[in-house]
Amino acid sequence: MSANRNRQVVLASRPEGIPQAEHFNIIEAPMPVPSAGQVLIRNHFLSVEPAMRGWVNAIANYSTPVGIGEVMRAFAAGEIVASMHPDWPVGTRVTGMFGWQEYAAVDPAVIDERVDYDDLPLSTALGVLGINGITAHYGLLKIGRPQPGQTVVVSTGAGAVGSCVGQIAKRLGCRTVAITGGQAKRQLCLDRFGYDAAIDYKQADFAAQLADACRGGVDVYFDNTSGTISDEVVKHLAVGARVIICGTASIANWDPTPSGPRVERQLLVRRASMQGFVIMDHRDQYAAARKDLLQWVREGAIRYEEDILDGIAQAPGSIASLYRGENLGKRLIRLR
Amino acid sequence: MSANRNRQVVLASRPEGIPQAEHFNIIEAPMPVPSAGQVLIRNHFLSVEPAMRGWVNAIANYSTPVGIGEVMRAFAAGEIVASMHPDWPVGTRVTGMFGWQEYAAVDPAVIDERVDYDDLPLSTALGVLGINGITAHYGLLKIGRPQPGQTVVVSTGAGAVGSCVGQIAKRLGCRTVAITGGQAKRQLCLDRFGYDAAIDYKQADFAAQLADACRGGVDVYFDNTSGTISDEVVKHLAVGARVIICGTASIANWDPTPSGPRVERQLLVRRASMQGFVIMDHRDQYAAARKDLLQWVREGAIRYEEDILDGIAQAPGSIASLYRGENLGKRLIRLR
Repeated sequence: MSANRNRQVVLASRPEGIPQAEHFNIIEAPMPVPSAGQVLIRNHFLSVEPAMRGWVNAIANYSTPVGIGEVMRAFAAGEIVASMHPDWPVGTRVTGMFGWQEYAAVDPAVIDERVDYDDLPLSTALGVLGINGITAHYGLLKIGRPQPGQTVVVSTGAGAVGSCVGQIAKRLGCRTVAITGGQAKRQLCLDRFGYDAAIDYKQADFAAQLADACRGGVDVYFDNTSGTISDEVVKHLAVGARVIICGTASIANWDPTPSGPRVERQLLVRRASMQGFVIMDHRDQYAAARKDLLQWVREGAIRYEEDILDGIAQAPGSIASLYRGENLGKRLIRLR
Repeated sequence: MSANRNRQVVLASRPEGIPQAEHFNIIEAPMPVPSAGQVLIRNHFLSVEPAMRGWVNAIANYSTPVGIGEVMRAFAAGEIVASMHPDWPVGTRVTGMFGWQEYAAVDPAVIDERVDYDDLPLSTALGVLGINGITAHYGLLKIGRPQPGQTVVVSTGAGAVGSCVGQIAKRLGCRTVAITGGQAKRQLCLDRFGYDAAIDYKQADFAAQLADACRGGVDVYFDNTSGTISDEVVKHLAVGARVIICGTASIANWDPTPSGPRVERQLLVRRASMQGFVIMDHRDQYAAARKDLLQWVREGAIRYEEDILDGIAQAPGSIASLYRGENLGKRLIRLR
């Protein structure tokens, strides 16, 4: 990187389904200059989320898709290196939607958080103490509302969100069941995230194992996958169950809408609910959630894993690799 | 009927899917004799509900299926003709799960309601002022929570439950859209139940008509049908929409579970919920709901239609005819 250039990952073409490396270009743009009231942020970590698939797809979604040629929308964590705003001095560590790029000049309104703790790495502000932890906290506690002794099932149980869900539920006194892909993640779920059971959906007897782990019924299902994994979980819903729809990672393409077993009868006879949510609707909840999460991480009640790739050149292919399940922990791109 | 015999409709064989006339027998049993603390009720009206399909099916359900040879489980309205309980004198009009039979000897705990109004026919205690009205009241107000100006769509909009839902929503200041089968019901929805729009799902351009009626998005969908009707409605959910799963009348058989378009992505991007309920879980709400409904019927804000068949011999075929959509209003069997 030359000192006065800003490397950016821009959307080159619109993917159908999961974005691959070839849907992005890395370009060099001029170093941005903050206007009055703005700050210049140097990104140290770029985040990679399953939700980014939706941010670039043209179909039914919750935000305007990233335009062709635009910097890829992304959470990032960095440090203010120039400031035109008295409240945001140089050296302040911040997170926000700064995009897949080395530098961003932004209004302070774009900043999600001033990272004022230094006993934990800055990277955690994007994962367990960032959008992933907050998503887990809100979805599980506000929508799932688990009670001690209830059974909580999490799809992508080893993931950045799922691992938090499982540990928050465990801390509450729930019985926790992870669904995950492969033996390494299964072991991580059991050994590190403290699940009572962890099931590999790639095993031929997945359905039988799940049935066995959910004999008393599933009170809360935190769903990050949709698809055939969810179809099995839904069969075991307890009366009054809550299904939290957080992501649909197992379905590559929603256009046209794929078919699956209808859920209406099961929701009726089990008096159960399915509810979707998008965490960005709930920014007013972030601070309280972060406070809880920070305490729980410091107490050791929540552990986290990170899977860090080095260099912006890793960004374009990182979403597809996430969907292939290649990450073990929160996927991040480290810059220099 | 001889004076000391009790004609009963009993389950003769277990149907798969919708029960037909041949799944029942009419038998003559001895007149029941109330034990200490019991009352003897002479039924004047027997109720016919879509839910009775579930009560006789062996698969996933919310109550133990009616046994072969047992009296068909049913709501009924009648009069106490003999009493062994001081609180329940002869002549009291009551409703409850007295079954498809002429007489029932029951504990007072089985009684749902003492019908103490006489400005409306006793039959209304089974429909608009009974389980149907209460179902509409609870589902719409407690789960749907519509706000004035919001769009409320009701499948089986002309039915005993649906027509109440539409009128309660209209009274709240909502825009109401009925989905119904055939021109006669469509006209009933518009002329008598005051819907802003009514759409015949049997028309070839149903999807286009629905899209047109729901251009601003569907805030509340009160679903009595499931199936392809619901698939169209779900496409139009507004952000924050609530889908109330009350019945699944359009699906004849849930074993095996039929397939349809997956709802997870739509629930996610619309931050919407689907929730099933069974009104019998909420008996503590009945009295308050009845009070509202009685007031609204007396005010003329809620109108009702009844479709009354004469004689117990009509009972066995009445559920199948309901599923064929042959009734225009609340289906009841009148005894003598």
